[in-house]
Amino acid sequence: MAELLKGAPVVAALNEKLIQKVTALKEKNIKPTLAFVRVGERPDDVAYENGALKRCEKIGVRAQRVTLPSDISQDELLEMIREINADTSVHGMLLFRPLPKHIYESLVCNALTPEKDVDGITNSSNAGVFIGKSIGYPPCTPQACMEILDYYNIEPTGKKAVVIGRSLVVGKPAAMMLIQRNATVTICHTRTKDMPAVCREADILIVAAGRAGIVGKEYFRDGQIVIDVGINVDEKGNLCGDVNFAEADPIVKAITPVPGGVGTVTTSVLIKHVVEAAEQAANRKG
Amino acid sequence: MAELLKGAPVVAALNEKLIQKVTALKEKNIKPTLAFVRVGERPDDVAYENGALKRCEKIGVRAQRVTLPSDISQDELLEMIREINADTSVHGMLLFRPLPKHIYESLVCNALTPEKDVDGITNSSNAGVFIGKSIGYPPCTPQACMEILDYYNIEPTGKKAVVIGRSLVVGKPAAMMLIQRNATVTICHTRTKDMPAVCREADILIVAAGRAGIVGKEYFRDGQIVIDVGINVDEKGNLCGDVNFAEADPIVKAITPVPGGVGTVTTSVLIKHVVEAAEQAANRKG
Repeated sequence: MAELLKGAPVVAALNEKLIQKVTALKEKNIKPTLAFVRVGERPDDVAYENGALKRCEKIGVRAQRVTLPSDISQDELLEMIREINADTSVHGMLLFRPLPKHIYESLVCNALTPEKDVDGITNSSNAGVFIGKSIGYPPCTPQACMEILDYYNIEPTGKKAVVIGRSLVVGKPAAMMLIQRNATVTICHTRTKDMPAVCREADILIVAAGRAGIVGKEYFRDGQIVIDVGINVDEKGNLCGDVNFAEADPIVKAITPVPGGVGTVTTSVLIKHVVEAAEQAANRKG
Repeated sequence: MAELLKGAPVVAALNEKLIQKVTALKEKNIKPTLAFVRVGERPDDVAYENGALKRCEKIGVRAQRVTLPSDISQDELLEMIREINADTSVHGMLLFRPLPKHIYESLVCNALTPEKDVDGITNSSNAGVFIGKSIGYPPCTPQACMEILDYYNIEPTGKKAVVIGRSLVVGKPAAMMLIQRNATVTICHTRTKDMPAVCREADILIVAAGRAGIVGKEYFRDGQIVIDVGINVDEKGNLCGDVNFAEADPIVKAITPVPGGVGTVTTSVLIKHVVEAAEQAANRKG
């Protein structure tokens, strides 16, 4: 049986620090504020928003809902983002994506000022992840993976890390973060030959394949740390990861559960970014 | 004996296309122009500049030398870059680095407009490489590696590629370009354990270790393609790569020589970017 790398204690440790920081900011009359910008009423988005709002409340971060009709024009949406850029009471923005097809998503994302890009959607934030510098903020999911490694004292230096997935929201940034932490990193994807053999080489395996349970026993060996980024619904309607948990559990050393693993930490990372953005804004004011 | 992946025919093929494009641009009264901005008189920089100027001339690209004293102030240098941004007769800029220590290099690099960033020094260009989109231009050396693979019909899809080095000018962008071309990519660096074993797994090995001849026979196996990015001077005063050529040659399938390999293609890539920048500027004018 593998050790379970649960998200809850990671979240608790992050929250404790965040509540202290929020208290310090409030003493300076600054209330960290996150704007949720949602176009349309996709149920998944609404559910995530409700969950995140509760978490904000718990930590003392103010949340602002900006709900827009799905036929909003690109210009109106850009104007909305410019207003958020100019509004000194808002420190970060989360934009639900994908946007409707009539809107040029990249243009809208890059209209956001990097200082408020707490979800890592601008080119500046991407450059920051690639360069290994603090420009904007990294995407929350790969950073949540790093928070989990940190909390459980798993040191990437000198380890072989394998990342399944080359997306801009998980795979590529996770690889860059692991290189920054001195791991030897391999990136696999749909065109990789004999992926199970590549993955068995990993000391740390980050799975962002995007398909329920497709990473089975042939991917694992004794001693591995497995971080399952996937969030899927199985045929019985239950949440599950990209890893076949029942097959991994008897083989690997440690694994994140789904639900209750990476996903829950991701929201804390988002709020952490908002608090950092508020601190930076306070520093700029002097 | 390995096949020699010489740079000369790659350069010849690139130049032929570039000369055609330059001719077409001149018919529209556009003369592609590259500004070389050099602070101080480092002999290596002057030598590179002289070589690149000759190559520009051969292709019909105008070169402008901007030579500045090494005690130039940061503000003066920034002003110079703003002038280049505003000058519609200049299409690309190469800035020799490192800059003197009293200058904040990243600030100066990012003052350049991405449209003229033909050497990939801005955050925008870095974001482009990371995202896999045309924003600015990628750094010339890793792109020269890709041009060599292309010219010699070496298809990265499904291959195992290993990159030695995690710098922003070679290692990281080379890795991103190989992922974009569907290779399974591993990035090694000074903290990698048993690097020779990792490298023996490679079908394509890109070496940017930064030390003369340190990649020896234990890194190789039959059938490999080796791209040697290193340019060093050995104890006899001769140019040599990071690969111990004499040890690689009898083992691997193909290898780039040093000199006469990646380095010579890099200058052609630089000029290619200037021509592309001039074409883009022409398109914007309509």
